[in-house]
Amino acid sequence: MDDQHRIREVRLTPVAFRDPPLLNTVGVHQPFALRAIVEVVTDSGLTGLGETYGDAGHLSRLRLAAAALTGVDVWQVNEIARRVRSALATDHGTGGHGMSGMVTGSSTADRVLSPFEVACLDIQGKAIGRPVSDLLGGAVRDRVDYSAYLFYKWAGHPGAEPDEWGTALDPAQLVEQAGRMIGEFGFGAIKLKGGVFPPEAEIETILALRKAFPYHPLRIDPNGAWSVPTSVLAGEQLAGVIEYLEDPTTGIEGMAKVAREVPMPLATNMCVVAFDQVKPAVAADAVRVILSDHHFWGGLDRSRSLARICDTFGMGLSMHSNSHLGISLAAMTHLAAATPNLTYACDTHWPWKDPAEDVIVPGVLAFEGGSVAVPAGPGLGVELDRDALARLHERYLSCGIRERDDTGYFRRFEPDFDPAAPRW
Amino acid sequence: MDDQHRIREVRLTPVAFRDPPLLNTVGVHQPFALRAIVEVVTDSGLTGLGETYGDAGHLSRLRLAAAALTGVDVWQVNEIARRVRSALATDHGTGGHGMSGMVTGSSTADRVLSPFEVACLDIQGKAIGRPVSDLLGGAVRDRVDYSAYLFYKWAGHPGAEPDEWGTALDPAQLVEQAGRMIGEFGFGAIKLKGGVFPPEAEIETILALRKAFPYHPLRIDPNGAWSVPTSVLAGEQLAGVIEYLEDPTTGIEGMAKVAREVPMPLATNMCVVAFDQVKPAVAADAVRVILSDHHFWGGLDRSRSLARICDTFGMGLSMHSNSHLGISLAAMTHLAAATPNLTYACDTHWPWKDPAEDVIVPGVLAFEGGSVAVPAGPGLGVELDRDALARLHERYLSCGIRERDDTGYFRRFEPDFDPAAPRW
Repeated sequence: MDDQHRIREVRLTPVAFRDPPLLNTVGVHQPFALRAIVEVVTDSGLTGLGETYGDAGHLSRLRLAAAALTGVDVWQVNEIARRVRSALATDHGTGGHGMSGMVTGSSTADRVLSPFEVACLDIQGKAIGRPVSDLLGGAVRDRVDYSAYLFYKWAGHPGAEPDEWGTALDPAQLVEQAGRMIGEFGFGAIKLKGGVFPPEAEIETILALRKAFPYHPLRIDPNGAWSVPTSVLAGEQLAGVIEYLEDPTTGIEGMAKVAREVPMPLATNMCVVAFDQVKPAVAADAVRVILSDHHFWGGLDRSRSLARICDTFGMGLSMHSNSHLGISLAAMTHLAAATPNLTYACDTHWPWKDPAEDVIVPGVLAFEGGSVAVPAGPGLGVELDRDALARLHERYLSCGIRERDDTGYFRRFEPDFDPAAPRW
Repeated sequence: MDDQHRIREVRLTPVAFRDPPLLNTVGVHQPFALRAIVEVVTDSGLTGLGETYGDAGHLSRLRLAAAALTGVDVWQVNEIARRVRSALATDHGTGGHGMSGMVTGSSTADRVLSPFEVACLDIQGKAIGRPVSDLLGGAVRDRVDYSAYLFYKWAGHPGAEPDEWGTALDPAQLVEQAGRMIGEFGFGAIKLKGGVFPPEAEIETILALRKAFPYHPLRIDPNGAWSVPTSVLAGEQLAGVIEYLEDPTTGIEGMAKVAREVPMPLATNMCVVAFDQVKPAVAADAVRVILSDHHFWGGLDRSRSLARICDTFGMGLSMHSNSHLGISLAAMTHLAAATPNLTYACDTHWPWKDPAEDVIVPGVLAFEGGSVAVPAGPGLGVELDRDALARLHERYLSCGIRERDDTGYFRRFEPDFDPAAPRW
């Protein structure tokens, strides 16, 4: 029998880990990515883990919420959500969504709730000796497929040695990047982060990938960098080549216009990133695929509701990622495994992370054939490595980065850079 | 730590319990209502309870599904849902939805899944020592409000003595019925089952109820008996009097036409009774309130998804009932308690049931102030009374009723009765 597991303490630890100079439409990844590690500790002696954005604004909201959770039993997730919303009523800050100027409309309360919900599910699972996937209706697959997430990139951060992935700025280099990533991880699908070069150049890259990997489903995500006419033209040129076109342009209205003209499904993690955007998107028939992300949709249970909404409204479901560590990968894997209609390979930035850097004890999460086995242990199935956490926290303290700012970092090298969309 | 709880056996027991001659638009309740009691037994020795319709067609589908569930762990609800759908692929029967010709579009697979899902949640709760509400995110209220569900009715079944509720065919008798029901149960809201008499007569009853109970929210449900123009006229006459107008007319298209003309929200448990009807209803803006019902929406977890859908699309949420026993009342109460946006008082036929007849050990479920306390024990918190179950099963065997047929029963007394809608 399970006793009460009341929250006694919540620990929040911001961390920073190395990140390569990956290019996107608002700039370039800074040398370090920020995350916040959440530990929820119960009076019964159990600890649950969560992982979320590490920006200063988000951290301050996490602290407000954490202070409100003492004494709640970890099964009372409705009450935890209520307390989080209530705690944020006193917050008047802006920004700090950890997503670099591209995903701005997500729900603040859901973003803050997410790591606490995940940590509570971790504790629930540990308390009853079940993996988190069992708390979500049970895994319908033993392994979760992820996609090779390709980026245009510089050789290395300016002033530093080239990183092991080297320069990737033209089709041949992207094909090489894909070959290496697929060789190492076994991915069966490919996503190209676009919006960096003019559409013709990126389409050329997609066509080169198609030639080199004729059987891999392909996607491109220009993060809204294209106008409606450019998106339509690109969509026509990519007909029969990509499985979906992700956020070619910004906004529900623009996406709906593109959707009416192109043959492939449009996908989004920009114009539908919160529950209150679903209704207008459905009304406009703007997208055919929503990329879920438990970090901004309020955790694993609310992400399951999003999955049911997609199923109910005839939309497909995929999964978005930001740069993340192992706690998030475990949570994403449990969620995806227990979501029957999540039929696309999920996004992950995992290959871009230095394998030596994480906050969890290694060994549980391994890629094979492009997929990760659902952790079988209780809860999330991953264990915090306190020394590693301390190292990455020291890095956070010393790195000087407190907000994700891809644009500011890019402007240090190209001062006239303008990230405004549409670019083309 | 929780061990595996694999399904070893599923027992299905049809039962019949006394039901008064309650009138509705397709006829009158027969002398006995049918239900099926589901017991799921695990190899670990736990038993979970479910309750559903008892019609022959539904029973035969329950048997098909039950046979497919052996060996599945009770936490693998996704797998159980898959097996149910798969088992029903060999079913070619029709009918047997237990809802008397009024709710015909619900999902067969979800109807069959529901009692098994509830029973599995009951076992999960028993295994970990938690109430089912905790498995649904936790109760946000200690007690769940229900409404006084008024019916026009005959004095008794023809040929039998009058029942204790007596005749209720005019406004004064309905006010008397309401007074007695509110006196006994404390209900704070009133629903009138309509569609029996011409709209003018039923509106007169509503106005009489308003006068007698000035502070009770009121609803009327003619089960689609009215044409669009009649519904609009009735809606105008009831402006400011009822909190919602339930299914005045049939079909999404008709409801949408009425919705555009009347001031109060329209509610439904007829034109949106399955997930595949949500999208067209939203597109048509046909309803403002959906009456959930875990018996036809696929169980408690899927009903929570419906709740999130309502929240996401700006619709209210209420709860429907058919004639039911205590297992269903317990399940309804756990679900309603754990659903933050279920803000209307739920429907229940409970007052029409002979208190001496049930299949559970009495004492857990009691009405006070119109509400039921969420059972605090593990699982659903109710216990099967095997002797009582055997008695109601004997009743099933002897009563001769195998399908719910309000129309056929009514025609025994009024052979020319035509239940076709719209009547007025």
